[in-house]
Amino acid sequence: MRRELFTADHEAFRQLVREFVAKEVVPHYTEWEHAGRLPRELFEKLGSLGVLGMSIPEAYGGAGLHDYRYNVVLQEEAARALVTLGTVRTQLDVVLPYFLAYADQDQRERWFPGLATGRLLTAVAMTEPGTGSDLAGIRTTAVRDGDAYVLNGAKTFITGGLLADLVIVVARTSSDPDDRRAGLTLLVVEDGMPGFARGRVLDKMGIKVQDTVELSFDEVRVPVANRLGEEGAAFGHLGHNLPQERMTVAVGSVAQARAALETTLAYVKERQVFGTPVASFQNTKFELAAVAAEIEAAQTMLDRAVRELVDGELSGADAAKVKLFCTEMQARAVDRCLQLFGGYGYILEYPIARLYADARITRIYAGTSEVMKVIIAKSLGL
Amino acid sequence: MRRELFTADHEAFRQLVREFVAKEVVPHYTEWEHAGRLPRELFEKLGSLGVLGMSIPEAYGGAGLHDYRYNVVLQEEAARALVTLGTVRTQLDVVLPYFLAYADQDQRERWFPGLATGRLLTAVAMTEPGTGSDLAGIRTTAVRDGDAYVLNGAKTFITGGLLADLVIVVARTSSDPDDRRAGLTLLVVEDGMPGFARGRVLDKMGIKVQDTVELSFDEVRVPVANRLGEEGAAFGHLGHNLPQERMTVAVGSVAQARAALETTLAYVKERQVFGTPVASFQNTKFELAAVAAEIEAAQTMLDRAVRELVDGELSGADAAKVKLFCTEMQARAVDRCLQLFGGYGYILEYPIARLYADARITRIYAGTSEVMKVIIAKSLGL
Amino acid sequence: MRRELFTADHEAFRQLVREFVAKEVVPHYTEWEHAGRLPRELFEKLGSLGVLGMSIPEAYGGAGLHDYRYNVVLQEEAARALVTLGTVRTQLDVVLPYFLAYADQDQRERWFPGLATGRLLTAVAMTEPGTGSDLAGIRTTAVRDGDAYVLNGAKTFITGGLLADLVIVVARTSSDPDDRRAGLTLLVVEDGMPGFARGRVLDKMGIKVQDTVELSFDEVRVPVANRLGEEGAAFGHLGHNLPQERMTVAVGSVAQARAALETTLAYVKERQVFGTPVASFQNTKFELAAVAAEIEAAQTMLDRAVRELVDGELSGADAAKVKLFCTEMQARAVDRCLQLFGGYGYILEYPIARLYADARITRIYAGTSEVMKVIIAKSLGL
Amino acid sequence: MRRELFTADHEAFRQLVREFVAKEVVPHYTEWEHAGRLPRELFEKLGSLGVLGMSIPEAYGGAGLHDYRYNVVLQEEAARALVTLGTVRTQLDVVLPYFLAYADQDQRERWFPGLATGRLLTAVAMTEPGTGSDLAGIRTTAVRDGDAYVLNGAKTFITGGLLADLVIVVARTSSDPDDRRAGLTLLVVEDGMPGFARGRVLDKMGIKVQDTVELSFDEVRVPVANRLGEEGAAFGHLGHNLPQERMTVAVGSVAQARAALETTLAYVKERQVFGTPVASFQNTKFELAAVAAEIEAAQTMLDRAVRELVDGELSGADAAKVKLFCTEMQARAVDRCLQLFGGYGYILEYPIARLYADARITRIYAGTSEVMKVIIAKSLGL
Repeated sequence: MRRELFTADHEAFRQLVREFVAKEVVPHYTEWEHAGRLPRELFEKLGSLGVLGMSIPEAYGGAGLHDYRYNVVLQEEAARALVTLGTVRTQLDVVLPYFLAYADQDQRERWFPGLATGRLLTAVAMTEPGTGSDLAGIRTTAVRDGDAYVLNGAKTFITGGLLADLVIVVARTSSDPDDRRAGLTLLVVEDGMPGFARGRVLDKMGIKVQDTVELSFDEVRVPVANRLGEEGAAFGHLGHNLPQERMTVAVGSVAQARAALETTLAYVKERQVFGTPVASFQNTKFELAAVAAEIEAAQTMLDRAVRELVDGELSGADAAKVKLFCTEMQARAVDRCLQLFGGYGYILEYPIARLYADARITRIYAGTSEVMKVIIAKSLGL
Repeated sequence: MRRELFTADHEAFRQLVREFVAKEVVPHYTEWEHAGRLPRELFEKLGSLGVLGMSIPEAYGGAGLHDYRYNVVLQEEAARALVTLGTVRTQLDVVLPYFLAYADQDQRERWFPGLATGRLLTAVAMTEPGTGSDLAGIRTTAVRDGDAYVLNGAKTFITGGLLADLVIVVARTSSDPDDRRAGLTLLVVEDGMPGFARGRVLDKMGIKVQDTVELSFDEVRVPVANRLGEEGAAFGHLGHNLPQERMTVAVGSVAQARAALETTLAYVKERQVFGTPVASFQNTKFELAAVAAEIEAAQTMLDRAVRELVDGELSGADAAKVKLFCTEMQARAVDRCLQLFGGYGYILEYPIARLYADARITRIYAGTSEVMKVIIAKSLGL
Repeated sequence: MRRELFTADHEAFRQLVREFVAKEVVPHYTEWEHAGRLPRELFEKLGSLGVLGMSIPEAYGGAGLHDYRYNVVLQEEAARALVTLGTVRTQLDVVLPYFLAYADQDQRERWFPGLATGRLLTAVAMTEPGTGSDLAGIRTTAVRDGDAYVLNGAKTFITGGLLADLVIVVARTSSDPDDRRAGLTLLVVEDGMPGFARGRVLDKMGIKVQDTVELSFDEVRVPVANRLGEEGAAFGHLGHNLPQERMTVAVGSVAQARAALETTLAYVKERQVFGTPVASFQNTKFELAAVAAEIEAAQTMLDRAVRELVDGELSGADAAKVKLFCTEMQARAVDRCLQLFGGYGYILEYPIARLYADARITRIYAGTSEVMKVIIAKSLGL
Repeated sequence: MRRELFTADHEAFRQLVREFVAKEVVPHYTEWEHAGRLPRELFEKLGSLGVLGMSIPEAYGGAGLHDYRYNVVLQEEAARALVTLGTVRTQLDVVLPYFLAYADQDQRERWFPGLATGRLLTAVAMTEPGTGSDLAGIRTTAVRDGDAYVLNGAKTFITGGLLADLVIVVARTSSDPDDRRAGLTLLVVEDGMPGFARGRVLDKMGIKVQDTVELSFDEVRVPVANRLGEEGAAFGHLGHNLPQERMTVAVGSVAQARAALETTLAYVKERQVFGTPVASFQNTKFELAAVAAEIEAAQTMLDRAVRELVDGELSGADAAKVKLFCTEMQARAVDRCLQLFGGYGYILEYPIARLYADARITRIYAGTSEVMKVIIAKSLGL
C-alpha cells in the first residue's frame, strides 16, 4: 500500500543516500565485512554529507532536524542496496540521542562539532559479562574522588567499541540494597584515558561489518565534567530512549526482509531448474506471496509507529509490539526466501546468506522477544 | 496504537450500534444460533435505526453515506459483544454494492426503499455444486425468451438464501468457448417466482447464525427488467466488488481476534488453577502478548487498507494481502486464546469456542488463502 | 514405514472390528451425533462381540488379554471409517483400568460380568467446577458414617456421565492442610443411589457422539463396599493410569490425522477446480507430503511408546512427549487437510469438518499441552 | 524412550569414537574451522583406528562390516562433543558406497587399501553451475578416445574437493535428446591428472570445517580403467545411494538438535538473569520441553528408518519423509535453543551459534525439502 510517512524532504534525502551508498559503500562492503568494522573514512564522508549531523543543532555544524524519519530512510536505503551501516546506525539511532538529551552546554561545545563531522565515533556500554540486559545487576562502579569519578569494571557486547572516541558508560555511583536501579550514572569515557582498554573482538555469526567488543576500566579517572545527565539518573535516561532503540531494530528488520524478498524475486525469475524458472513453481509463488503479505503488515505497523515516535506519542508497549512482530516476521521471511535459493542460499557471496545470518540477532538485541513479551503483557494487565 | 480511521460521526454511530447490539442482539443470540438464521425482525429494526440504509440514497429512504467505515464499525461492535451479524453483514458489505452500482432507475425505485427499511432481504448466488469460486465454470443458464430470461441451474453455499427476497444470480447468457468468463449476466430472482426453490440448509461447523443454503432454478422466467447491469458484463461487475468483499472478511477477522483476546484476558485474570490465577503464568503472559502484537499489526494494516478502500485506491493485490494476513492471524490468535481456557474452551457456552469454530471459514470464503496467494504472486511478477 | 507393533491376533481382531464398524456404526453415526451419545445397544453388541471384555479375566466372561494393542486397533479402525467410539474408548482405556487394578473380590463379582457384556456403562468423575485437572483442589467430600460414606459435591466435564451405571468419584475423605493430594478416595456411585443426579449436558464444539455432563451428589450414601482401593490412596491410583490415558489420546490423534489425510487424498484426486484436479497443484502436493511426513514421525513415536506401555516400561515423561507431539501434529495436519476442501471443509457432512472440530479437544483433555510441558521439563531437570 | 537400534558392538565402537573425538578432534576444532577444512592427519588417524575401513572388505585392510549403524554412531558422537566430522562423514556415507558397489577387481586393488588407511581422500562431483541437483541438466562431457575419456566441464558445491585424491565425476558420455537422464557415466578423476584444477573455495555460512569448492576439467584424459560401473549407468547408480545419503543428513540433524538441547540445558541451569537461573522461567521450561518432544519423535522415526536401511528395506519415499521431518525439526529446535542464550547465542565461541549456522544447510543439501515433498507426494499418488 501507499506509504504516507515521508515528505518531499525525506525523499530528497533518500536520493542523496541512495547515491552515496551505491558509490561509497557497496564497492567496499565485502572488504569491510572481512575487516569486521566500518572505516573511519566512512564516518567522515557521511559527516561531510551532513548525514551524521542531521539531528545536531545548527550552532554545532548540524542541520537541527530532530526527525527520526531521516534515520529510517538511511536504514532503508542501506538495506535496499543489500548492505547495512552497522555502527553508523548505532551512533545515530542509539548513542546520539543521549548526547542530544543530556549534554550540558560545555559538553555540547566539546563534542557536538566532532559528532557532526564524523571525527568523533561513539558507543554506549551497558551490558556486563554475566548480567545481560538487566541494568539492576550492573557491577561497574564509579567512586567520586574530587572532580573525577574513579571507574572500575568490565563491559561486553559493545557495538562500535573498537573505534569509539567517546564511550557512554553506565556505572554504579551509589548502592541502595532496596533499589538496585537507583544509583546508576552515565559517564563519558574518552579514548586514551589511562586504564581504559579494549578487549576481545567478539566473533559473531553475522552483522560482520560492525565490531562488537569487550571493554575494561581499571581505575579510570573520568572528570565530573564528563558526566552525562544527573548522578543516579541513568536508569531513567536509558529507559527514555528504549522505544527509539527498539524501533530502530524494527526498521532494519522490515527493510532487510523487503531486501530479501527483492533479491529472491530477482533470483527466482532468472534461475532455471529442471528447465523452467524457479519462479514458475506454485510453491515459489505461494511462499513469496506469503512473505509479501507479512512484510506489508509489518510495514504499515512500523510506519504508524514511526509516526507516533516522531510525534512523541509512542508508548513503550507499542514499541515492544512493533519490535516483536517485525523481528519475528523478518526471521520467517528471510528463512523462506533463502530456501528458494537452494545451495546458493548458503554461500556468503549471495546476499541472502548474509541477510539470514544478520537476521538472527534482531530477535535478541535491544531487548529479546521474551523481554518484549514481558512489556506487552504488563500493558495488558497481566 | 492510536487509530486514525474514524471521525466523530463514526464514533456516534458506534455508540448507537453498541447499544442496539446489547439490547436487541445479545439477549437473543443463542436462540438465533439454534434457529440457524437471523430473524426478519432484526432486519426491520436495523432498518428503522437507519443502519441498513446508510449507503442508500436519501431519495429512497437512506442516508446517502457512501462510507465503508460505517460497515467496519458495525462488525467491530458486534464482535466486541461476542456476536456476529451474519447475513446483515453479507447484505450490507457484499450484496448491496451490486444494487448501488448497477441498478437502473426503475430497479432503484422498486427495491431501494425495501432494502433501506429491511423489508427486502438479499443474497448473491455465484457458487455452483462442483465449481467452487471459479466463475468460468458456471453452468447455470439464462436463455432470452421475449422480455424474460429462462433460468435453469443450481447454486450452493448461498449465504442468506433461506430468507432472501431478492437473489442476484450469476447465469450464463451466452457461451464463447474461448472465453468462459464472458457471457455471464446478473439476474435478480425474486421470492415466489415459479421454479425458484430453496434446497438443503447446509450444516456448518460454525457461523451458525447465518443460513447457508442450496438454491435451484427450474425454468424460472426472470423479466429482463430484473437484469442488473449489462448482459454479459457480470464478470467485471463481480470482480469490481471483490476487494471490498475481501476487506469485509478481514475486518471481521481482526475484530473477532480482538474479541478473543479480550474475553481471554478477562478469563485468565479471574480463573484460578493450582491456587493461582491463570494470568500469573509466564506462558499465559507470553501467549497473549504475542497475540496482542499480531492483532496490532493486523489492525494497522487493515485500517490503512480501509482508508484506501474508502478513497477508491485499494488494489486487488493489497486487498488480497490484507485478507490473507488478517485471516491467518485470526486463526493463530483464536487458537492460542482458546488453549488458555482448558476444557471450557471446548464448551459452546463460552464464546471462545464459537469464535474458534467461526474462524475456520475466514481462510476459505471470499477467496481462499491460496487464491489470495495467486493474486499476490501475480502482483509480484510471478 | 513398516509397523512392527501387531501380531496376527491383533490383525484378526482388526478385521473383526473393521466389519463391525462398517455394519453397526457407520450407518447410524450421524444419528448418534445428533443424539449426543452412543446408544446402550452399541455397548451390548460390542459386549457380545467380546470387545468390551477383552481385558477382563475369563472367570468373569472376558478374554483375559491384558494387551493395550487391542485398544489401539479399536481406535484405528474407528478412525479409518471416519467415526469415533467416544465413550466406548473412555470405558476401555480410561475407566476399566481402575476396576481391573483396584476392585476387590466382591466388586469383581458384582461388576465385571456386566462390564464384559456391556450391561454396565461407566464413567470417572474427577474434575470439579473451578478446579480443572488440579486434584489438589478437589472439594467433593465423603464423610464416613458407619458402613457408608456420605458424599457431597459436584463434578463437571464427565464423559459418559449421562448413561453411566457406575461412576468412579474422586472424593476427599480427610484433609491435611499440608498435603492436599492426600486424603482422596475413589468411590463407585451407582445409578439410582438417592442424592445422585445428572445435571446439564455440556454442548461441545466437537466429539458430539460422546456425552459430557455435570453430576451432583447430595448426601449420597455410598457403601464402604463400593470403595475402590484404599482410603486416601486415590492420588496414587489416578496417577498410575495417566500414561495410558494420555497414550489413548495420542493413539486417537494419530489415527484421526491419518484418516484426515486419506479422506483428503481421495477428495483432491476427484475434485476439479479451474478444470484440473485439486491434486494437480503443487501446493496440494506439498501440503499433503508435509502432513504425511509428520504423521509418519508421530506413528513411529507412538508405536514405540505403545510397545513400552505394553511392556510396562513407559515413563510418564515419555507419555507426555508422545501426547504433546501427536496432538499438536494432529492439529496442524487436520487444519492443512481441511483447507484443501475449500468451502466443503466447513460443511459437517464432510468428515473433515468433524475431524477438525474433534481435534481441538486433544490438546486439552487428559492433561493440556501445557501440563505435558511441565512434566517433560521436570524430566529435563528444569 | 529406550533405543533398540544398537548392539554391544556398536556401543563399544561408540566408546572408541567418543574418546577419539575428545582427544583428537575437540582440541583442534576451532583451528580447523578457521582453516576451512579437516587435515589429512585426521583421516590417517581415523584410518589407523579402523573407522574409515569399517565397511571395506577385510582383504583390503578393512573390517568388512557393512552396517550403517557404525556411521550413525560416528555422527552421534561428533555431535555429542559439539563438533562435526565434515568430509569424513561425506567420504564414509556418500562417496564410499559408490566404490563399494561399483568398483571392479582392479579398482578395488588400486584404491581400497588407501581408502581404508585414510591415505586416499575422496569427493563426488555432480552439481554444475546453473543446474542444481538436476542430473538431467549435466553438461560436463566425456568423449571416448581410445582407452580414455576426454573430460570437459565444471562442477561446483563439491564437498571435500580441495584435498580429494579421487573425485567421482558424473559426466555425459552420450546424448539422447529424449532421455537426458541416460548417457551419464561415473569417472574417477585422480589428483594430478593434467587439466584437472580446483577453483574457488566457496565461503559458506556454516559447516566451516568442510571445504566446498569448484572443480574444472579441461581436456582431462581419464583412463577407461577409471570408469566406475557401466557406461551410461550413472543415473541408476546415483539414485541407488540416495536414500542413505538422505538418511545421513537426517542422522546429523537429529544428533545436532540433541546436542543443541543438551548445551542449552546446561546453559540455562547455570546462567542467571534478573537474579534467577534462566532455567527457572516457565518460558524456558516450555520451550525446551517442546524441543525435547520433537527430538524424541524424530529419533524414533530415524531409528526405525535406519533399521530398515540396514535391512535393505527403506523406500525412497520413507527416506524422504525422514529427511524432511528431521531437518525441519532441527531448524525449529536449534532456533528455539539459541534464543535462550540471548546475545551469547550469536557469538561463535558458543557452540549453539555454530549449530545454528550449520543447521541451515540440512534442509537444502542431499535434496531440498521441496524435492523431498515431490518424492513423498508421488508416493501418495499425487
